[in-house]
Amino acid sequence: MSLSSLRLLNNYSTISKAMVCEKHGQPKDVLRLKEIKISKIKDDEVLVKFLASPINPSDINQIEGVYPIKPRFKEYGAVGGNEGVAEVIAAGSKVKNLTVGDWVIPDTKAFGTWQTYATSPENELQKISKNGISSISAATISVNPPTAYRMLKDFVNLKKGDVVIQNGANSAVGQSVIQIAKAWGIKTINVVRDRPNFDELASELHKLGATLVIKEEDLRANSTRELVKSLGSPVRLALNCVGGKSASGITRLLGHNATIVTYGGMSKQPLTFGTGPFIFKNLRACGYWNSRWNKEASKKDKQYMFDDICELIRGGHLAEPWHDETKWEVSDDNKTLNKKFMEALSKAGKSFGNKKQILTFE
Amino acid sequence: MSLSSLRLLNNYSTISKAMVCEKHGQPKDVLRLKEIKISKIKDDEVLVKFLASPINPSDINQIEGVYPIKPRFKEYGAVGGNEGVAEVIAAGSKVKNLTVGDWVIPDTKAFGTWQTYATSPENELQKISKNGISSISAATISVNPPTAYRMLKDFVNLKKGDVVIQNGANSAVGQSVIQIAKAWGIKTINVVRDRPNFDELASELHKLGATLVIKEEDLRANSTRELVKSLGSPVRLALNCVGGKSASGITRLLGHNATIVTYGGMSKQPLTFGTGPFIFKNLRACGYWNSRWNKEASKKDKQYMFDDICELIRGGHLAEPWHDETKWEVSDDNKTLNKKFMEALSKAGKSFGNKKQILTFE
Repeated sequence: MSLSSLRLLNNYSTISKAMVCEKHGQPKDVLRLKEIKISKIKDDEVLVKFLASPINPSDINQIEGVYPIKPRFKEYGAVGGNEGVAEVIAAGSKVKNLTVGDWVIPDTKAFGTWQTYATSPENELQKISKNGISSISAATISVNPPTAYRMLKDFVNLKKGDVVIQNGANSAVGQSVIQIAKAWGIKTINVVRDRPNFDELASELHKLGATLVIKEEDLRANSTRELVKSLGSPVRLALNCVGGKSASGITRLLGHNATIVTYGGMSKQPLTFGTGPFIFKNLRACGYWNSRWNKEASKKDKQYMFDDICELIRGGHLAEPWHDETKWEVSDDNKTLNKKFMEALSKAGKSFGNKKQILTFE
Repeated sequence: MSLSSLRLLNNYSTISKAMVCEKHGQPKDVLRLKEIKISKIKDDEVLVKFLASPINPSDINQIEGVYPIKPRFKEYGAVGGNEGVAEVIAAGSKVKNLTVGDWVIPDTKAFGTWQTYATSPENELQKISKNGISSISAATISVNPPTAYRMLKDFVNLKKGDVVIQNGANSAVGQSVIQIAKAWGIKTINVVRDRPNFDELASELHKLGATLVIKEEDLRANSTRELVKSLGSPVRLALNCVGGKSASGITRLLGHNATIVTYGGMSKQPLTFGTGPFIFKNLRACGYWNSRWNKEASKKDKQYMFDDICELIRGGHLAEPWHDETKWEVSDDNKTLNKKFMEALSKAGKSFGNKKQILTFE
């Protein structure tokens, strides 16, 4: 333990600058920058300094109160943000598995990651092997890569050469799906809505490893069916984060005994399936919620997965998600910090935005 | 082997009277009574005399050509009917597992059961232990009881006291579900459409063992939700043969981690599910098709199930389905046989008819 962290541990009055809400509401209305006095860590706790934290759509829904997981309200309110990476800068005497300098991500719901410092029991954190990993990658490793990883692994026993179809392929999860599938030798059919810069987007997705990129508007075309056939294997897994017609469209391209996994509903339209495909093609529809997996999985399973994902990152298979960075600098006054956050928040709130908004802390 | 069957085996010219179509079409237009000369059985074949055969909706769809399983067209056409019970009246020298007097049901697709006699390789037949079983029960044992049995067994690991919900509860499968569930200590919530004789129907379903009987129109009522809650266990399995609003309605009453199995689509409306329940309640939607199970299951698994179902029948747990009987008598001329069949067919074609039409052979 370094001298500076010892000092912090024994005699400090660290102030965390945090985006806090005192009640549910539109984040832009209820969130504001607050200074929170960090209390001295207990024996089983660590003090961490955040390095980077994204603003995810579910963070926003959580503050609105429309998400099944609620913020952790304390006397000063609730700090927003569920994902992020922090560095351990002090550890209590009974902390076993973490040491100063380790990188950690939250391993509990509603941690509150939009802040500069926090204390936490060590069992509510997950260690990330930081060697060769950027803070941007680490800050975005908790939700999207695991969602892609688990959906590709847990529903269908995929083999090399098998084919997966997904809509919302340009989403952060979509990008992870393309890259992890590519690393595992699985072909991906990637559906995105038409847009003025479609060719550019398709080219970006191909660079990530996409096998095919298809416009949602072309899902029902015969040419699409032929293209899918040309891959030589039936589509065994569909990943849906859109719902409505898009979900029906990708379902139509599935082979026998395929599974469609829903993990989002961006169109706000329900899922509609024909009765016939369920009965005669033996389709199966399920949902995936990363928070449930997190809650139910063992520490060992989580460590295994994150080690595996870190290996993919180190091996160059899984790039940082497309993002904008918002830097909180030490020299910024509180008004500036608040303003910077609100600008990033407003960009994060735009649906179907391709770029993740990430707050980084000097 | 009896003298008479030996005679038959060695020197007979049995004529089967059969309902035959030469092409696809409306059954009433394309089916007609034909006399088919039964050829001498081969060493691995048996000659059977049919005792009873139902007219099922899927038999009709098959003749129309809109069912995934097609009729077996031969030079004289295809005999209709997939289900029925027959008695072995002669067996070839290499037949191992069947003997004269045994009762058998088809164990292959599109057998052709609307006829008085047939020959068949023994491996295309399944033996039924006839002791204590009526020919009506045996004739209707191939499809509906197994559909109910497998749906209750293969999707969710149900324990005594668990709750299952089903729509179309008055269908033949629905009746089997109620009775088998009752025998296994599982509670059933049974949804049927409102009708003038609702109370009478509900009373019949309660007699079979139904825990609750609910009108489809009341599915969304708060009182229904309370009633379901009062059962004390979350609903873990839904069985759907209707689709559309009825399917959405029963889905709404499901507990976490429940499965909805679709085995029919009487409303001809697609299945619509909210995105949220898939993700946050971890619902799963699948299909069940008895023909697929039949194709994929081993002879041993089939024998085990039919023995189990026969035990349920013998134990008084599984009654004959509600039915009308149409008797083909030896004294009837061909015109009369044809007319009797067509009358039964016209009743069988009425959708949502509660009563199964069963042809019996003197």
